Amino acid sequence: MAEQRYKGIRVLVTGGLGFIGSNLVHALVREGAEVTVVDGLISGCGGDEYNVAEVRDRLRVIIADIGDREAVSVALADQQVIFNLAGEVSHSMSISCPERDLRLNALAQLRFLESCRVWAPQARIVYASSRQIYGRPRYLPVDERHPVDPVDFNGVHKWAAECYHRLQARLYDQPTVVLRLTNVYGPRQSLRVSCQGFIATFIARALRREPVLVYGDGSQLRDMLYVDDVVEAFLLAGLTPLPSAEPYLVANVGGPRPMTLSEIARTLVGDDVHYVPFPAISARIDIGSYHSDDRLFRAWTGWQPRVDFAEGIVRTLEFYRQHAEHYLHGAVN
Amino acid sequence: MAEQRYKGIRVLVTGGLGFIGSNLVHALVREGAEVTVVDGLISGCGGDEYNVAEVRDRLRVIIADIGDREAVSVALADQQVIFNLAGEVSHSMSISCPERDLRLNALAQLRFLESCRVWAPQARIVYASSRQIYGRPRYLPVDERHPVDPVDFNGVHKWAAECYHRLQARLYDQPTVVLRLTNVYGPRQSLRVSCQGFIATFIARALRREPVLVYGDGSQLRDMLYVDDVVEAFLLAGLTPLPSAEPYLVANVGGPRPMTLSEIARTLVGDDVHYVPFPAISARIDIGSYHSDDRLFRAWTGWQPRVDFAEGIVRTLEFYRQHAEHYLHGAVN
Repeated sequence: MAEQRYKGIRVLVTGGLGFIGSNLVHALVREGAEVTVVDGLISGCGGDEYNVAEVRDRLRVIIADIGDREAVSVALADQQVIFNLAGEVSHSMSISCPERDLRLNALAQLRFLESCRVWAPQARIVYASSRQIYGRPRYLPVDERHPVDPVDFNGVHKWAAECYHRLQARLYDQPTVVLRLTNVYGPRQSLRVSCQGFIATFIARALRREPVLVYGDGSQLRDMLYVDDVVEAFLLAGLTPLPSAEPYLVANVGGPRPMTLSEIARTLVGDDVHYVPFPAISARIDIGSYHSDDRLFRAWTGWQPRVDFAEGIVRTLEFYRQHAEHYLHGAVN
Repeated sequence: MAEQRYKGIRVLVTGGLGFIGSNLVHALVREGAEVTVVDGLISGCGGDEYNVAEVRDRLRVIIADIGDREAVSVALADQQVIFNLAGEVSHSMSISCPERDLRLNALAQLRFLESCRVWAPQARIVYASSRQIYGRPRYLPVDERHPVDPVDFNGVHKWAAECYHRLQARLYDQPTVVLRLTNVYGPRQSLRVSCQGFIATFIARALRREPVLVYGDGSQLRDMLYVDDVVEAFLLAGLTPLPSAEPYLVANVGGPRPMTLSEIARTLVGDDVHYVPFPAISARIDIGSYHSDDRLFRAWTGWQPRVDFAEGIVRTLEFYRQHAEHYLHGAVN
């Protein structure tokens, strides 16, 4: 029996059929929350009803774009905490189709926050932002004061959405928390859709016993975060009293330690790692090394990541092997 | 006879019927350029065909939204310098209608830059950004390293458009200059449309011999820049060789000196200044004092502002008095 920190609390999860969103939904159900999910199942964004199949009868699920004011009004009424995870995640897709990224990550968020003001103006909103907004780090580890300088359209629009959340707090007093997530991995990430980030590609190749291709020399650093740890960060961000009078907080959420892409790849496939030059466009949007300074978030909530990468990868591969029929071989949404 | 620095050079001015755009068009014609204007005459954005009436027969004018790919393709072919000034300027309008601001300042720019890549990939683009992206200054004077933290949707979307221009340079090698303009005043600003900024309101009231209302105690600083000076900044930014190998530069363009809102108001109407409390929403988006550190731009181009505020206001009021029939009494676009 899990803790019941959310017992009887009404929560909405946007993007609740996606990778992080569905893991959060599982945890919220365990914690006793009354959970509503809004997810547009938009092709390429990672949403998948299979992700919540085991808890489906304990949820209200509304299949709609978060920018759909009518559908969202029904979902929002009386909510107490809103976990706002809907969005396009692909960096490379944002370059080939920036207008799609604008629509999904900026315009839809603008409309959704207007709906929040109308239907749930007291609810706390926790928004899933990304380390992507920082672009190529100018120093390490990266704290929240690091300049915002995204290297692709996805980063531009995630940052615009962050600003909308900040304005929601400043102009309209809605309590709002923005979490800038580092790279997250674990069960329920879409492996069949391309462009979901390097770790999904690495995991899919490991499961298929294919070699892993690393761009560059593999020395780039990342602080990989297991999805259960990021879920716990969201749970805490939804309930922990804000530390100042301002109804707004932005905080990094990082992994347990920085590690090289080589180490990440070797953990998955042993020596079956090939180093190849960056493709032209990837070289232009590569950010080099990144890891987070997330002391602000730890001090606020007491949170810390608990799952080391080696352990997290064991759990992740086991999950996908158990569900290989769906995640590896099923049809792509 | 003016210098002929642009003799025979093909230039496009977006927003060329607006306040700064039309003044730039007059200068470009004097300098011998072959000028095309694209302007959507979108209500509230300040565009007005009267602004270029005197030089109308020496221009090609295309009335179209900059996001209109077909119209823009005709305008862009073979251009050498693109002065990109189209946009929504109203901060307060961006709060009452953020989606309009998104469409005009972000989406339309995204589409326009895609058109530039197709039809004029070698042309230098000079984009008119705004000090608004900095929000409430954390130190004075504000240089280009100041954090980006806009206080309204207009600032968010102007910054998104800045990012698009930076990506245009980084991803596609198109030479791009972003100028972050301080408050500009002078002839050809729309005085009949509301929400064009405080200086338009002050000037209209001075012309009508009405008192000027200042929010707060009038101690807030601004570095007002006369439009002829900002036009010269654009002319230089269009032709001066870039200082580094990177095809991108962002620079502040400020006024000759900081002055208080009280001094600005008194220059216009003498003692007929009333100090009133901030309206609720204005208090939340007020940025306090601002003035620019624009040493980067001055060092790059040798530019400096030449018109002091007292002199600029004399010229401005004289212009509007000569054209009062149109600017004060005509119908609103």
